Amino acid sequence: MQKIKRRIFETIEVSEDSTTAGKIFDVFLISLILINIMMVIGDTFNLPENIKTVSRCLDVISVIIFTIEYLLRVWTSDMLYPQYGKVKSRLRYIFSFMALIDLLAVLPFYIPLLMRIDLRVLRILRIIRLLRIFKVNRYTNALNTVGAVLKNKANQLVSSMFIVALLMVISSIIMYNVENPAQPEVFKNAFSGLWWAVSTFTTVGYGDIYPITTCGKVISAIIALLGIGLVAVPTGIISAGFMEEMGHEKEDDKDESNKHYCPYCGKKID
Amino acid sequence: MQKIKRRIFETIEVSEDSTTAGKIFDVFLISLILINIMMVIGDTFNLPENIKTVSRCLDVISVIIFTIEYLLRVWTSDMLYPQYGKVKSRLRYIFSFMALIDLLAVLPFYIPLLMRIDLRVLRILRIIRLLRIFKVNRYTNALNTVGAVLKNKANQLVSSMFIVALLMVISSIIMYNVENPAQPEVFKNAFSGLWWAVSTFTTVGYGDIYPITTCGKVISAIIALLGIGLVAVPTGIISAGFMEEMGHEKEDDKDESNKHYCPYCGKKID
Amino acid sequence: MQKIKRRIFETIEVSEDSTTAGKIFDVFLISLILINIMMVIGDTFNLPENIKTVSRCLDVISVIIFTIEYLLRVWTSDMLYPQYGKVKSRLRYIFSFMALIDLLAVLPFYIPLLMRIDLRVLRILRIIRLLRIFKVNRYTNALNTVGAVLKNKANQLVSSMFIVALLMVISSIIMYNVENPAQPEVFKNAFSGLWWAVSTFTTVGYGDIYPITTCGKVISAIIALLGIGLVAVPTGIISAGFMEEMGHEKEDDKDESNKHYCPYCGKKID
Amino acid sequence: MQKIKRRIFETIEVSEDSTTAGKIFDVFLISLILINIMMVIGDTFNLPENIKTVSRCLDVISVIIFTIEYLLRVWTSDMLYPQYGKVKSRLRYIFSFMALIDLLAVLPFYIPLLMRIDLRVLRILRIIRLLRIFKVNRYTNALNTVGAVLKNKANQLVSSMFIVALLMVISSIIMYNVENPAQPEVFKNAFSGLWWAVSTFTTVGYGDIYPITTCGKVISAIIALLGIGLVAVPTGIISAGFMEEMGHEKEDDKDESNKHYCPYCGKKID
Repeated sequence: MQKIKRRIFETIEVSEDSTTAGKIFDVFLISLILINIMMVIGDTFNLPENIKTVSRCLDVISVIIFTIEYLLRVWTSDMLYPQYGKVKSRLRYIFSFMALIDLLAVLPFYIPLLMRIDLRVLRILRIIRLLRIFKVNRYTNALNTVGAVLKNKANQLVSSMFIVALLMVISSIIMYNVENPAQPEVFKNAFSGLWWAVSTFTTVGYGDIYPITTCGKVISAIIALLGIGLVAVPTGIISAGFMEEMGHEKEDDKDESNKHYCPYCGKKID
Repeated sequence: MQKIKRRIFETIEVSEDSTTAGKIFDVFLISLILINIMMVIGDTFNLPENIKTVSRCLDVISVIIFTIEYLLRVWTSDMLYPQYGKVKSRLRYIFSFMALIDLLAVLPFYIPLLMRIDLRVLRILRIIRLLRIFKVNRYTNALNTVGAVLKNKANQLVSSMFIVALLMVISSIIMYNVENPAQPEVFKNAFSGLWWAVSTFTTVGYGDIYPITTCGKVISAIIALLGIGLVAVPTGIISAGFMEEMGHEKEDDKDESNKHYCPYCGKKID
Repeated sequence: MQKIKRRIFETIEVSEDSTTAGKIFDVFLISLILINIMMVIGDTFNLPENIKTVSRCLDVISVIIFTIEYLLRVWTSDMLYPQYGKVKSRLRYIFSFMALIDLLAVLPFYIPLLMRIDLRVLRILRIIRLLRIFKVNRYTNALNTVGAVLKNKANQLVSSMFIVALLMVISSIIMYNVENPAQPEVFKNAFSGLWWAVSTFTTVGYGDIYPITTCGKVISAIIALLGIGLVAVPTGIISAGFMEEMGHEKEDDKDESNKHYCPYCGKKID
Repeated sequence: MQKIKRRIFETIEVSEDSTTAGKIFDVFLISLILINIMMVIGDTFNLPENIKTVSRCLDVISVIIFTIEYLLRVWTSDMLYPQYGKVKSRLRYIFSFMALIDLLAVLPFYIPLLMRIDLRVLRILRIIRLLRIFKVNRYTNALNTVGAVLKNKANQLVSSMFIVALLMVISSIIMYNVENPAQPEVFKNAFSGLWWAVSTFTTVGYGDIYPITTCGKVISAIIALLGIGLVAVPTGIISAGFMEEMGHEKEDDKDESNKHYCPYCGKKID
């Protein structure tokens, strides 16, 4: 029994050097998730009735497979956290972020009343499970670097974003006061102003809302030019972050390869 | 009396290691400012009469609190600048940037004639007071770094922006001459051309103004591609600035940790 | 015979230090390609019949020249790969990427039935032959640097793009569910949502699809602000890559110029 | 006479440490240029007749002043190039870029027939004279840095722009073939396709031209995502360039301050 459990654990567990069974299981699961995403997208089209029936069948099968997988994971979770007891390790697993996502993705199916409405939306959660793809080592490293940079520079990014948010709120209220008399239907309230501010700052510019008065256009031009800074400042911060990260990696390499010291200075000479 | 004054000063003053009373005061004030911002935004909606009454009451209370705070700050400002005399320190405080913002944010309330028109707009000034949030040390440091980079690179940024401004004015006048005969209603005057230039350079592209003649489209394409440079050049400048700043910090770290010198050269060897 | 073959090979071959005949041949071929591109573009206009006749004649001449060039290349390909035999070197050349492009660009002409439809589209392939311009050494080096940077950072770029793709799919499905009831004609299905997501993430914002409900606008604002990151993260990655590449080049320079060693340590002192 | 000439030369010449007279002259000239720009912009509005008369008078005065300045510059140009003879130095000056701009900016006034049409457009040339502002040293340095970076990285920038141009032409022809049957009025010819490609690549997205077929939308999405690279690659190149430039400046500083050498190694120790 314990041997089977160990085998199941090795198969379903997301780890780098997985067994052949584990690799097959991964490909199967990712395929199933991709089919599920296609089904969610397909549901929004007016498909013929027979395809809808197939879709509904596939959904039932998917939910069953995902449920079995979830239960197996809970069952083998004491192998994931060998330091804890049988109950504690399971509770720990159940309340982990990924396990909650897995549960939410299948739960609505079992609550008939919510089924029609929520299933559609919650099924999107299955997409997050695609993160399994990052099991491949080199992508994980790359993603970790990106993550580390964003984390290191979080304070600077948050600070500059806060200033941008202040500028947005101020300019949206000014814009509302300037443009409302000229086009009351478009700049209905401060929220319209905020929608315009986002649209302009990010340079999306859908064209559903824009100033028509001279005064409004001058303010809008200033905001749009500041929007350039909205890109330039975080880009500069992130660039510096990637450079720093690159430097760390280089230093780590150095420390290992250069072990020679000058007999005179008593200091390491690189 | 002096003891109470000291206590009030420590409570209201924006400083890093504030007392518990100071922290409560900060949270209270930031909440009040956030409520005020929500009220300014809410005013632009067609709210029912009873909510408007509540809003007006809250406004009166806010103004009273902000006025008391302002007066207390003026009163205790001799503790902020202990090197100056009683009168000079107060005058210095009153004419500081933040104090003028504070005054402007409450003043219109006391001038009944201006009240209806200006209060709305000037109340937005209260939003600037949210900068108190940067009292938290790590965010201040981050913001200082961003500020230092922008200041160091100000000359380069201003120079490149000046060239961009010249390009904008030139291209707007050319565009006006090219497009005016084809669509006189859209490209009415050079100002329309300038509005188009900003919209294209910043890649916002609302869609309210664009060339329709072949010649105009060719010019617009060139301008739009140059617009890429409008992002790339400041981003490059700012990136280099952040790198430089990062280097300074590292050097500072080095200076403290490496205190060993080569016995021969008499120079520090890092 | 062998001498003529050698001469033809040196003329048509893309190499840096080509003969005068080779240079003339290059200019002639690039001109012919440019004329072909202009013809492809010209074909989409309603040109008078006599110009169309000229165009058709030029096309026949071009195809003949390109065919002769192709055959000559195949014939001389054993000089390109002297290490292989007569047959192997030719097969190797025929199945190389550039040779397949060359073949595809002339083939439709010889298959009368496909001629009317495919010739137009496949003629665009001739544009790829413009890459000959990169024969000039300094541009090749520059392009190689750009290519090396993109290759080095491919993992990081792919990882961040994968996360962006996940975000796009999730937000498009959410957006469809939010906006479909309000504007069923615009947000027809999840594909419309995806089109909106691309349009917003890349900050293009054509203005053919945008949210009109409050809830949709809030989601759109978040997506647009995240879109800033879509530019900032790859830009940061690529910037760091160019810096790294620059560092490598500098190190290579150093290795050659600094050949002095400290007589004491026996180690190189830079 | 020679003394007066020397004085005039020092006054009108663009140099860093100019005399008081030179500074006054600069301020006067820049003001005159700014007035001229405002007049060019003002001309595009429907101004009352009396203002137009004032504008015309000011224009005559400006042209007279600019002509006198031009003649004085030609006269004193032998002091600018003391190494050449009287005739050669003048010819050299007359055919310099800035002198040609100056001439073009006043010439149309003296050719009555061209006056009505060209004066308007050529007057814009006077705006280029605003570059005098860069006389201030720190801005010149900053601009020189920006210029040096763009020059150093020109090969890389040109190479990547060439690839982008190829992509644009290819995608515009594909797009024309895909969208023309669906909306023949919008995608009229390959030029429309090219206009769409610029609009999408630069993420301007005016909204006057966009795909409506599913196939066209897929291609457009790919192009828009590649457009991100259009920003990211040159930004990365320019960032690296600014870093390199910064490094050079630091090295220059080092070379001057560190003149001490280790007596042992015989090498400079920094």
